[in-house]
Amino acid sequence: MKRLAVASKKQLADVVVKNGKIINVFTHEIIQADIAIADGKIVGIGTYDGQTVIDAKGKYVCPGLIDGHVHIESSMVTPSEFARVVVPHGVTTVITDPHEIANVSGTKGIEFMLNDSNDVPLDVYVMLPSCVPATAFEHAGATLQAEHLAPFFSHPRVLGLAEVMDYPSLLQGKQQMLAKLSAAHAAGKLIDGHLAGLDETAVNVYRSANVHTDHECVTVDEALTRVQHGMYVLIREGSVAKDLNKLLPAVNTYNARRFLFCTDDKHIDELVNEGSIDHHIRLAIQAGIEPITAIQMATLNAAECYRLYTKGAIAPGYDADFLLVDDLHSFSITHVFKKGAIVAENGRATFSKATSIDKTITQSVHAKKITKKDVEISFTRGNQANVIQIVPNHLHTKRLITEMDVENGVFQPSIERDLLKLVVVERHRSLGVGVGIVNGFQLKKGAIASSIAHDSHNIIATGTNDDDIIAAIEHIKSINGGLAVVENGLVLADLPLEIGGLMTARTYEEVLERLQTIHDALTTIGASGEFNPFITLAFLALPVIPELKLTDQGLFDVSSFQFIDVEV
Amino acid sequence: MKRLAVASKKQLADVVVKNGKIINVFTHEIIQADIAIADGKIVGIGTYDGQTVIDAKGKYVCPGLIDGHVHIESSMVTPSEFARVVVPHGVTTVITDPHEIANVSGTKGIEFMLNDSNDVPLDVYVMLPSCVPATAFEHAGATLQAEHLAPFFSHPRVLGLAEVMDYPSLLQGKQQMLAKLSAAHAAGKLIDGHLAGLDETAVNVYRSANVHTDHECVTVDEALTRVQHGMYVLIREGSVAKDLNKLLPAVNTYNARRFLFCTDDKHIDELVNEGSIDHHIRLAIQAGIEPITAIQMATLNAAECYRLYTKGAIAPGYDADFLLVDDLHSFSITHVFKKGAIVAENGRATFSKATSIDKTITQSVHAKKITKKDVEISFTRGNQANVIQIVPNHLHTKRLITEMDVENGVFQPSIERDLLKLVVVERHRSLGVGVGIVNGFQLKKGAIASSIAHDSHNIIATGTNDDDIIAAIEHIKSINGGLAVVENGLVLADLPLEIGGLMTARTYEEVLERLQTIHDALTTIGASGEFNPFITLAFLALPVIPELKLTDQGLFDVSSFQFIDVEV
Repeated sequence: MKRLAVASKKQLADVVVKNGKIINVFTHEIIQADIAIADGKIVGIGTYDGQTVIDAKGKYVCPGLIDGHVHIESSMVTPSEFARVVVPHGVTTVITDPHEIANVSGTKGIEFMLNDSNDVPLDVYVMLPSCVPATAFEHAGATLQAEHLAPFFSHPRVLGLAEVMDYPSLLQGKQQMLAKLSAAHAAGKLIDGHLAGLDETAVNVYRSANVHTDHECVTVDEALTRVQHGMYVLIREGSVAKDLNKLLPAVNTYNARRFLFCTDDKHIDELVNEGSIDHHIRLAIQAGIEPITAIQMATLNAAECYRLYTKGAIAPGYDADFLLVDDLHSFSITHVFKKGAIVAENGRATFSKATSIDKTITQSVHAKKITKKDVEISFTRGNQANVIQIVPNHLHTKRLITEMDVENGVFQPSIERDLLKLVVVERHRSLGVGVGIVNGFQLKKGAIASSIAHDSHNIIATGTNDDDIIAAIEHIKSINGGLAVVENGLVLADLPLEIGGLMTARTYEEVLERLQTIHDALTTIGASGEFNPFITLAFLALPVIPELKLTDQGLFDVSSFQFIDVEV
Repeated sequence: MKRLAVASKKQLADVVVKNGKIINVFTHEIIQADIAIADGKIVGIGTYDGQTVIDAKGKYVCPGLIDGHVHIESSMVTPSEFARVVVPHGVTTVITDPHEIANVSGTKGIEFMLNDSNDVPLDVYVMLPSCVPATAFEHAGATLQAEHLAPFFSHPRVLGLAEVMDYPSLLQGKQQMLAKLSAAHAAGKLIDGHLAGLDETAVNVYRSANVHTDHECVTVDEALTRVQHGMYVLIREGSVAKDLNKLLPAVNTYNARRFLFCTDDKHIDELVNEGSIDHHIRLAIQAGIEPITAIQMATLNAAECYRLYTKGAIAPGYDADFLLVDDLHSFSITHVFKKGAIVAENGRATFSKATSIDKTITQSVHAKKITKKDVEISFTRGNQANVIQIVPNHLHTKRLITEMDVENGVFQPSIERDLLKLVVVERHRSLGVGVGIVNGFQLKKGAIASSIAHDSHNIIATGTNDDDIIAAIEHIKSINGGLAVVENGLVLADLPLEIGGLMTARTYEEVLERLQTIHDALTTIGASGEFNPFITLAFLALPVIPELKLTDQGLFDVSSFQFIDVEV
């Protein structure tokens, strides 16, 4: 009622934005008009007066940006703190998949993400993890079946089922996979895809299962095939996967409406320094995409894809989520408004929220005491070993077969030849330990350990000697998960990630400081700085990406899809 | 499950369309590929085999067309028969507003439209009439409040609330209007607008009330204002209102996604001969719109506007509703498929359905016996009268003040001066009779009567003498509504419209024959043929269009919005 009264000018608006150059994503043009806001909604575009007047003279007014797919856990801060990081970059809505915390804490993890993101000036919508655990080759902290997900579909911020990556199960029509899909579809919810490298037939299968997005395209051909077959394509630009410049050539004036942007996985330092979806817009414009087309992908197109009908545009009936931007080419954001109220200014959030955390997710590390015996690698036939050779800044590894220093039938690490020990400790139910050999970390002393190891997030450690490896692992256990750098039994630096071993309740500023001390400590123990050893470590236990990986269950050859011995 | 098996080529498709040039509305391009269909759904675009193979060599394959807003009653046939008319023209989905039958029969009328359109190869979605009765200045057969509409929102084919035309109530926040709007919105349904001639402020008010379409634009400026403010614009081309060529200049490559097509009101003969939405496509292409852009407006854009997520495209996961077209410029449709089965070939439907009708809507005419006294117009002061002057082929009229032939204080019609009597008989509850004088019909003898008189559909008649006027009215009553031409007390021709006095259960072929005999009869009694007297008659009782109208309650001056005397 009030909104109608304000729209019809019988009543003053709460807020009016005057003199701005409004980016109209419906007509792809710039419009000069006042924006009237009442009760957090835009109620009028035209000539209005309000109790509060915001002078946007010389500035562009852009709809709030939307990240179509993000794993907030990758920022290592809580959803409410994540908001403090991305809102200043103009992101007012995200669609998140709590896949990481769900692999550790199951439904408790999903509940935490929903509860913590409540009442923050960032709309956090959730797609329910569809593949927990991701594989049968490592132990995760939870298993989520259709019946576990079902209760969440009634939550107002749950939009559907997240990245369906288990194509074999889909293809074989596995009952549990189909049950999740049909539960989502029956509830009128959306289903996101994950079609990494899959061909047209797979796209047909996914579409026939009502999957309507893919964020795994890396070529123009893949992107166009998906759009032709009725999918929305999310153009990803994150910390590890950077697809934007590869995919933009697929976008033109006619098909742009079917493209949107996402970060998927982006680390806190890059989010702070480089940005989120605002970074996509800048890159797209630099690549020659028309600025308003780039902005449509970051706003209206994403809103249409996720059926968020009051998001993604500056028009009456839409949420008053918008940004003030100095210049379209640099896309420099000076102010961010949510529901008509200012929430960020010159890169700083003007809000914060205290996180309340349930013990069920802060005590997620349950690993047995590790002895030297546990991490011993014995050779019975000779000294030839299967070694995981890392490829700096890539998720895949190579399989290296070479000879080891072996004393009394036991593997001895070699700093000279950069052959270090890699250990994965199951940490959800105090189960086993996997031990292997890794080449490429170039550490000269000490050890590092982390509780971030996709997708099951067991404790993973590497180092130059068993004492430090064990010390690092024990420290991770003592802080309920996190990152640690150890030398001579002493912890040089750490970052506690007490929430599922993945996130911390600390502010992002403190996390950035801690990461700096970790960076220094890594240098101390010999890290080259050419790549981040913790990020590399985080993917060495993921048995779905070639070639050789180590899980808590042992050395896994992804090519032959089976466990193999370290000794050849 | 079967769909996945067919999509993955483990199982043969039910139907495969081969060698066609597929119009891809997502990428705005033509694609050569097979279309695999299973259980009425498209499951694959690529290379497929099927139990039945359709050779589309040399033809374009176009998604089924969508009429965004149509009053089926204007065709005078039932929804199931209407399907036989429009499906051959490629229309496989319509969004209808049963506003006319609802004004006569209320919820029974809505139920009839839903039931009769069940199980026909045309998806008939319903928007619930928002304004019954349309005005307080004529008596309708029903009054529909929010509580009467509420039960229909759960019907799978009810999409929302139809053309909200009562702007004053909206502006004044009338409780009953707001109740309908909030009921629709709360049910997650859509709300159509009706913003004839309204300005930007009104658009803001409508949008703030969650109204998201308008089909009443007649200028480029109106259309662009609505699109800029977040509305979808339905470009209308019907029998009376022809807006397409006026609005097309507003459409460009950037904003086309917010435009779609509708017929609103189109008569049976024009639907049969000229077409439905296929006619829009032809006109748009002739006007220089890119063929695929025109097709997008007729398919994908309409599906997005009405959130019909499995309509409007040829892609896996979509309904197998499509057409075969010989050539894009003439847009000549040779075959129409619904759910993968052929439903029309070379302009002829291959289906029909028997209509079962409830007596509650076939006996809708309840009018008192009309005597000469009832239709007498007496003059007390002199011979000056307010005359309704019709404007051929327009809905508005002019107010003409001139002298009448008056004998013993009673009006005498003048064939020479074309001053005939106009009579409106309330026919829902046997209430009053309105009598006036009309200029412009040019009848030389006899009389005509009809039970189609927007929006309340009382019986309206005009003629050269009272006996024939009364005879015509009595005949309309005797056939439970319809059209009639009378001379010297004899019925020269008629068309019974036994369903609410608006539609007949006859085939459209029989209706066309009857209309021809009516046309001949009209010529016999002097009609010039320059315009259709029945269509003109149908709007003379509509007291919302200027300047002078006649309702069952008397002569209404739309300019001053009040009833006036015939005598000046």
